[in-house]
Amino acid sequence: MTILAVIGGSGAEGSGLAVRWAAAGHTVIIGSRSAVKAEAAAAELSALLPPGASSLAGLENAAAAAAAELVVLSVPYAAQVDTIAQVREESQGKVFITVGVPLMPPKVSTVWHAPGGSAAQEAQAQLGEGVRVVAAFQNVSAGHLKDLAWEPACDVLVTGDQKEAKLQAMELARAAGFFAVDAGPLANASVVEGMTALLIGINARHKVQGSGIRITGIARE
Amino acid sequence: MTILAVIGGSGAEGSGLAVRWAAAGHTVIIGSRSAVKAEAAAAELSALLPPGASSLAGLENAAAAAAAELVVLSVPYAAQVDTIAQVREESQGKVFITVGVPLMPPKVSTVWHAPGGSAAQEAQAQLGEGVRVVAAFQNVSAGHLKDLAWEPACDVLVTGDQKEAKLQAMELARAAGFFAVDAGPLANASVVEGMTALLIGINARHKVQGSGIRITGIARE
Repeated sequence: MTILAVIGGSGAEGSGLAVRWAAAGHTVIIGSRSAVKAEAAAAELSALLPPGASSLAGLENAAAAAAAELVVLSVPYAAQVDTIAQVREESQGKVFITVGVPLMPPKVSTVWHAPGGSAAQEAQAQLGEGVRVVAAFQNVSAGHLKDLAWEPACDVLVTGDQKEAKLQAMELARAAGFFAVDAGPLANASVVEGMTALLIGINARHKVQGSGIRITGIARE
Repeated sequence: MTILAVIGGSGAEGSGLAVRWAAAGHTVIIGSRSAVKAEAAAAELSALLPPGASSLAGLENAAAAAAAELVVLSVPYAAQVDTIAQVREESQGKVFITVGVPLMPPKVSTVWHAPGGSAAQEAQAQLGEGVRVVAAFQNVSAGHLKDLAWEPACDVLVTGDQKEAKLQAMELARAAGFFAVDAGPLANASVVEGMTALLIGINARHKVQGSGIRITGIARE
């Protein structure tokens, strides 16, 4: 079991993943800009856990990252640079999973590639070579995550340049109830991030909230 | 029923789609740089059609495009500019479907975005505003297409800037046996094209030949 910091863990996506990881037995620390907000989110999320599960803790971002073995970043793209600056030192030597997607309002259903290739590659550049960045969960709709009985139909595509770091992220995807697929190097994150814009448009046209993607033609153990 | 030109129709992907469209009752003209090669491919593909089906014809690229109501381009990215130059005039006023994917050897499992955003957007720029470009079939593995009994598990994501043109492409995807999904404007083609690099890597890691993607969370009629 791993000690995870979920930076941006008071948001919809981060908090949903945090609950699922805590339910699976991981020690989860919700990170937020404000320790008070982090503690409140942790208390609220702990109430969703089954009886007997260990509860979640809440800390200010830097303290959350410092206390964790693995850091998950789940903040809006607009907040990514400032948030990473808060946890950069505390993340050195660790695996760092980016969940966010660069979207360009108001046309969020049109693909917009981040100047650095992808949000994940920009995170890697900012964090430096001492941090192993992996991108995952970009195509997961936050909607049902907090319902622990919900079984996702969509897959989690995982990209990154270090095999071991990717395997850790894939294990966390499985812990959250997803089928995980190794989707290649971090350079491929631009496609996984961009797919979210397509899914937002598909949601609108099909009048649903949680379309996703699934890889076909492979064995699913 | 539509008169379709499949430019590059002697290749694996183009010929597979051509057979399926001919079997569905469309009139299909195989286009190639050489009329002789086009005719040979058409004769070979006609032999795969069920008894009583209309046969395919073969013509040199420009003549094929001229004779068609709708043009499908299925050539390697490296040949795209030269091939479009051959059919540019003959394609004016028509719907033009790009099937190709820009890949950068030797690392074809790493995403590489075409300088113009995507191969489809580059085709649109070269063809001009008088041609309605749609991107489709990028994620379809050629392997099983010629087996008319084969039922694909993967979806066809269709991107384009004109609704009617997209609907025609979606109808052709259904005629070829696929579930078709409107994936937004042509700007989104970069993601659909790039997904093919991810699938090539997934094929290698899972030791399969035809991984694909499927959209989850929407009604599938």
